[in-house]
Amino acid sequence: MTTTTHPLLARIARSTAATDTPTAPLAALHQWWQEVREADDSRVELIPFEAMRSWSFAPGTGNLVHDTGRFFSVEGLRVHRPEGPVPHWSQPILNQPEVGVLGILAKEFGGVLHFLMQAKMEPGNCNGLQLSPTVQATLSNYTRVHKGGSVPYIDHFLSRDRHRVLVDVRQSEQGSWFHRKRNRNMVVEVTEDVEVRPGFRWVTLGQLHRLLAVDDLVNMDARSILACLPFPFEGVTGEGRREPGTELLSWLTEARSMERVLAERVPLAGLPGWRRRPDRISHEDGAFFDIVAVDVTTGGREVGGWTQPLLRPRGQGVSAFVTKRVGGVRHVLASVRVEAGCADVLELGPTVQYTPENYARLPAGALPPLLDEVLGAPAERVLFDTVLSEEGGRLHHARSRYLIVEEDANVGDGADGGHRGDGGPPGSPGHRWIPMDELVGLMQHSHYVNVEARTLVACLQSVCGPAERRPARSHGKGA
Amino acid sequence: MTTTTHPLLARIARSTAATDTPTAPLAALHQWWQEVREADDSRVELIPFEAMRSWSFAPGTGNLVHDTGRFFSVEGLRVHRPEGPVPHWSQPILNQPEVGVLGILAKEFGGVLHFLMQAKMEPGNCNGLQLSPTVQATLSNYTRVHKGGSVPYIDHFLSRDRHRVLVDVRQSEQGSWFHRKRNRNMVVEVTEDVEVRPGFRWVTLGQLHRLLAVDDLVNMDARSILACLPFPFEGVTGEGRREPGTELLSWLTEARSMERVLAERVPLAGLPGWRRRPDRISHEDGAFFDIVAVDVTTGGREVGGWTQPLLRPRGQGVSAFVTKRVGGVRHVLASVRVEAGCADVLELGPTVQYTPENYARLPAGALPPLLDEVLGAPAERVLFDTVLSEEGGRLHHARSRYLIVEEDANVGDGADGGHRGDGGPPGSPGHRWIPMDELVGLMQHSHYVNVEARTLVACLQSVCGPAERRPARSHGKGA
Repeated sequence: MTTTTHPLLARIARSTAATDTPTAPLAALHQWWQEVREADDSRVELIPFEAMRSWSFAPGTGNLVHDTGRFFSVEGLRVHRPEGPVPHWSQPILNQPEVGVLGILAKEFGGVLHFLMQAKMEPGNCNGLQLSPTVQATLSNYTRVHKGGSVPYIDHFLSRDRHRVLVDVRQSEQGSWFHRKRNRNMVVEVTEDVEVRPGFRWVTLGQLHRLLAVDDLVNMDARSILACLPFPFEGVTGEGRREPGTELLSWLTEARSMERVLAERVPLAGLPGWRRRPDRISHEDGAFFDIVAVDVTTGGREVGGWTQPLLRPRGQGVSAFVTKRVGGVRHVLASVRVEAGCADVLELGPTVQYTPENYARLPAGALPPLLDEVLGAPAERVLFDTVLSEEGGRLHHARSRYLIVEEDANVGDGADGGHRGDGGPPGSPGHRWIPMDELVGLMQHSHYVNVEARTLVACLQSVCGPAERRPARSHGKGA
Repeated sequence: MTTTTHPLLARIARSTAATDTPTAPLAALHQWWQEVREADDSRVELIPFEAMRSWSFAPGTGNLVHDTGRFFSVEGLRVHRPEGPVPHWSQPILNQPEVGVLGILAKEFGGVLHFLMQAKMEPGNCNGLQLSPTVQATLSNYTRVHKGGSVPYIDHFLSRDRHRVLVDVRQSEQGSWFHRKRNRNMVVEVTEDVEVRPGFRWVTLGQLHRLLAVDDLVNMDARSILACLPFPFEGVTGEGRREPGTELLSWLTEARSMERVLAERVPLAGLPGWRRRPDRISHEDGAFFDIVAVDVTTGGREVGGWTQPLLRPRGQGVSAFVTKRVGGVRHVLASVRVEAGCADVLELGPTVQYTPENYARLPAGALPPLLDEVLGAPAERVLFDTVLSEEGGRLHHARSRYLIVEEDANVGDGADGGHRGDGGPPGSPGHRWIPMDELVGLMQHSHYVNVEARTLVACLQSVCGPAERRPARSHGKGA
């Protein structure tokens, strides 16, 4: 492996090390965040479906749709997975065929890369505002006539040729809730002057990493984008990302080829196991999630007020990476995850990803593998432990506990991880140790790394980067 | 760019240079091919649909299905592409959700890599036998009880850990005819002894390249697999494949994000514009393709005789790459192609890909761009020109003329091709010059390079490789 470092990787390392700059003074950042939160006058209330404006259940299918056919719809999905633990089921699913832009502007100030972040209210956020990318826009938002204003900064992402593109890849969202959803994750570096509008702020990577340790502060879209950047994880040099090897790709090809999963869109009406009540659609066991409706009022957003449906998960998820260094290079233990809404059968996910509530009525043997390794780890091996929100545009108070756990050096497969035939721990063929530069290489393409794993990669940047800062569990709970 | 050559690339160069080896004497190859063709006693006859055994039109949908639900089905597809040249249409489509294995065994003899090829009859072949991969098998073929024999050599591809995997990637088939079809393209190198069964033969890459210049000899699946190998195209060193750059990936991400195409499976019965007759389903204009039925009898195949539907294209396709060297490195001019059956919106295709018959009733302005550049090129710039068959398992006499044309040095965008913002010729934003090592890098992943372009990459190996052999158009028309 080469030991030279690519200029971009060196610049990312520099931005990671910078937590207080003249452009982005740390004290002013905290002050700003407090101010924008206090100024947030938005209000979100749960309402019955019939109180929604412009949304209704379509005759025949019973799908929940907007009058214009835009935004998204709630439909049914019937899934067959004959060899899976649950061979067939039906569920509501969010369908939004358009590809949105999730973009972060980057610019150097004083030789340090800064990123333009937005304090953005989403109706499903549990806390109103979260720190969000420069732009979150659907194709409808930015290409068609819209009742509200235009999307600030969108032009920078639509004219790639004028700028330097650091990241540009369509990535998935939660495959259990969204049907084949993809959004375009972008980082575009500019050199020209950029006006900082109210609610926007330049911050460094080091600051973003600190804020990641605060519950529900950095939003899902921002985490997803940050994860795709080349990054100087411990032992990673060169370009910070590496072409995935034939061995890893072959393992993924095999997993996808042997998996039989058939997901068919069906009408929402009459979906087996699901009941529609005046104010929600729920599973008869009270598990998984509900579909609910909200009324939103706000002064600051492009449209002053609106109503819409949201998907409200039951229970808080847990997603965790077990990690270790092999030959000095940071690795994570990834798993293959088949989800009904996957655009291509399965994606790589965290070591453990599950919602305890959904397992509550199953026998103990049905629990995910390696759960004890994660939840039973002593504090000194827990590198990261924060509750973060999933996206608030279509999900209601969706929160997950994200954990990064250093592997117990006394167990596992020792120093050869990632270099053997299957590369995973004995007895778990669905897991594999992957070096971080190879994982980042995969993230330059669609369909490989799921959104929970991408959040964890962003979190891993904050604890296994060049500076090797390792906040303890209790750090930074207030920004 | 490094000038060292990876050991595998050097071995592929050696196999390309070898056209006559003790293991694979050239004269014996020709002799063998003549013998197997003479011994082929298969017979294929067009029959009315009602004469099919085990196939029927399902009540309600009218889909053409097998009694067991296996193999494939003929269904309907309704396509919306509001900004496309044809904003909506309906068509029959072949649906086969299982991922098959297309595998070639490789082994060194006397220091030269040889590939185990099969003389295989397919019912849709225009000429009975074609030279095919070691294995062509569906998941049903090799994992379930089957009326015929087991699949020879399949074990080598199901136990990857025992061998060296050179290629393992799921690739698409024709998006105009197949719904999201993927097959697993594999090359596996073994060191153990392998029994050569009747109808199989070890050949070198150099021999395969010669045979590619013969009409309808090397089958589509073999071409698709060969294209995925790292290859020492002119100016290409290192590993023979290179991680696609951010610029290329960003261009593809943008094309996919801006495209609105919605393809929905619908019943075959009542498909607008299509009529079912006793012996075929045809478009009312007589264009595109028919669905027909055949009766097959053969002594050599695993099942002695059967009936099945096939898709019979109207007219012969034309697929062409325009190519040039930039800074000594071989490039091709690729285009983005939206096809209704694409699993992910669009893939990269040839410079030109079209079927003249389907354009016959359109105004001249509707013809594909760059058509004159390809069809009007003088003989000295035509590096490859051969009619090759598409796959014969579900297509009937599907043939295309494959052309490789050296760019006229006096036109085009000169020496900066592949390095500019859009990288393509002026006025054609859907085209882009791509260096061969980057294109081969893309082919290590699914969803990037369509099957016609992969055929052309295999053909390009035969004329722009390390030895720079350039057969004239008339060469090798008889093997």
